[in-house]
Amino acid sequence: MNTASRPRVGHIAFLNCLPIYWGLARTGTLLEIDLHRAAPDELSRRLVAGDLDIGPITLVEYLKHAEDLLLIPDPAVAADGPVLSVDLVTRGPLADLPHAPKVALASTSRTGVLLGRMLLEQRYGREPVYAVTPPDLDGALAAEAFDGRADAAVLIGDEALRAYHEPRGHHVVDLAAEWKDWTGLPMVFAVWAVRREYAEANPGLVKDVHLAFRESVNRSREEIDAVVASAARWEPFAPEALAEYFERLQFGLSERHLAGLREFASRAARYTNAAPLRDGPEFFAAG
Amino acid sequence: MNTASRPRVGHIAFLNCLPIYWGLARTGTLLEIDLHRAAPDELSRRLVAGDLDIGPITLVEYLKHAEDLLLIPDPAVAADGPVLSVDLVTRGPLADLPHAPKVALASTSRTGVLLGRMLLEQRYGREPVYAVTPPDLDGALAAEAFDGRADAAVLIGDEALRAYHEPRGHHVVDLAAEWKDWTGLPMVFAVWAVRREYAEANPGLVKDVHLAFRESVNRSREEIDAVVASAARWEPFAPEALAEYFERLQFGLSERHLAGLREFASRAARYTNAAPLRDGPEFFAAG
Repeated sequence: MNTASRPRVGHIAFLNCLPIYWGLARTGTLLEIDLHRAAPDELSRRLVAGDLDIGPITLVEYLKHAEDLLLIPDPAVAADGPVLSVDLVTRGPLADLPHAPKVALASTSRTGVLLGRMLLEQRYGREPVYAVTPPDLDGALAAEAFDGRADAAVLIGDEALRAYHEPRGHHVVDLAAEWKDWTGLPMVFAVWAVRREYAEANPGLVKDVHLAFRESVNRSREEIDAVVASAARWEPFAPEALAEYFERLQFGLSERHLAGLREFASRAARYTNAAPLRDGPEFFAAG
Repeated sequence: MNTASRPRVGHIAFLNCLPIYWGLARTGTLLEIDLHRAAPDELSRRLVAGDLDIGPITLVEYLKHAEDLLLIPDPAVAADGPVLSVDLVTRGPLADLPHAPKVALASTSRTGVLLGRMLLEQRYGREPVYAVTPPDLDGALAAEAFDGRADAAVLIGDEALRAYHEPRGHHVVDLAAEWKDWTGLPMVFAVWAVRREYAEANPGLVKDVHLAFRESVNRSREEIDAVVASAARWEPFAPEALAEYFERLQFGLSERHLAGLREFASRAARYTNAAPLRDGPEFFAAG
């Protein structure tokens, strides 16, 4: 008889994470973990607070709390070029954006928001005024904070993907594509991390979870038609749009992704209280 | 493109429900439902309130709300004889129980509690005084409501299974075995039901969920050694004890189970505001 507890693992119920969890529901691994489903920011908060052992964390929050966390090499959510679902939506062409645009931050992802700010301020040379707004495009562009008329909005997730496919006269700038144009590197939006103290006490369990995630992502690649069919059954996107989306998303961290992560950390330092990574990120090693 | 939503399905994270969910995590079905995990009473409440579409409901609550619900033929949680995890624990032999015993109700299952009351009052001829107490055996027998000394406790779930295996001098009466001695019938503790209005609007989805549960339970039977090994990894019971438990539990409703259900409904009527079932229970039919 034992006294072990299942590891508490976070789960983002967004479309972009379906390929990460697909295999867990086909290999029985979901029975070996204590899965907690919530929005990305809430999961980040819980991992930092110690209410979860392992889980996704938005890159900005990881950078702030890197001392307490170890990265798990996969999964991750990244893109080397367009990601389709992290967008700056403007009313007219980007070149026509005023010098001090009113920008709605219609996003609960701190990394997506920070990427939007970096690009607006450092690449496009603007000095925006920001306001946090409802997460849908119409609500964002009609935000009360801007007396009902924002010039642009930073959108993420399913709502951003919808705007990409149905811009309705707006201009949609893919922020991961812009990041690549700017830096030559992939953009990492979220990483999976384990609390350092949990990893030290339970290296075997963490290794199991890491390998289960790796197997799950591999299985999604093998069964991508079934993943697309399942998503198309429930999500308001055509199978072709879903297939393109899952093709763009990257779920592992190569050396190039780590270079992109470090570059983001370096450029993010002036906006956050996160120290730039020196030799990091530090990875969990099963030993 | 569609506007369907995944059905909201309740999930009891108790050991006795592992064989019901086992297959859902091996066939990918968990990706096709919106699973809500909670304690049995809370899931019953949510199904009745319309916050869930399909899920487990303790038999007593089903009987009270049968007008709004349709039974799904499987799964269920039942036993034809000993169930091991729904117990009356007494300090001495049952025959020595005083005429007006102090009985701790250490259970969040209204059906288990009502079964205990029925047996104490109608079969054993006692006139107990009851109090709701903490769910563990020691806490129940030392309940403040009885000045620190109850004569007996009704226990359910993992805590009851532990008392069965480690009675520590107490006497443990298996209430499902007593029910069978008394009535000749199986005892049904929980059923799975769908809200009538949801079933009328979404018969195809309900059929899918029903068949997925049926396949899941069948798969658990086929892979029972793996189910036991997974449970033994996390639960404080030896593999042999788990195998015996899963062998005792029954996850479907035969005609004999329905007779047991109706007999319980008939005997329960005097304790609850539930009308006795006439021709029911009424089942979901995919048509």
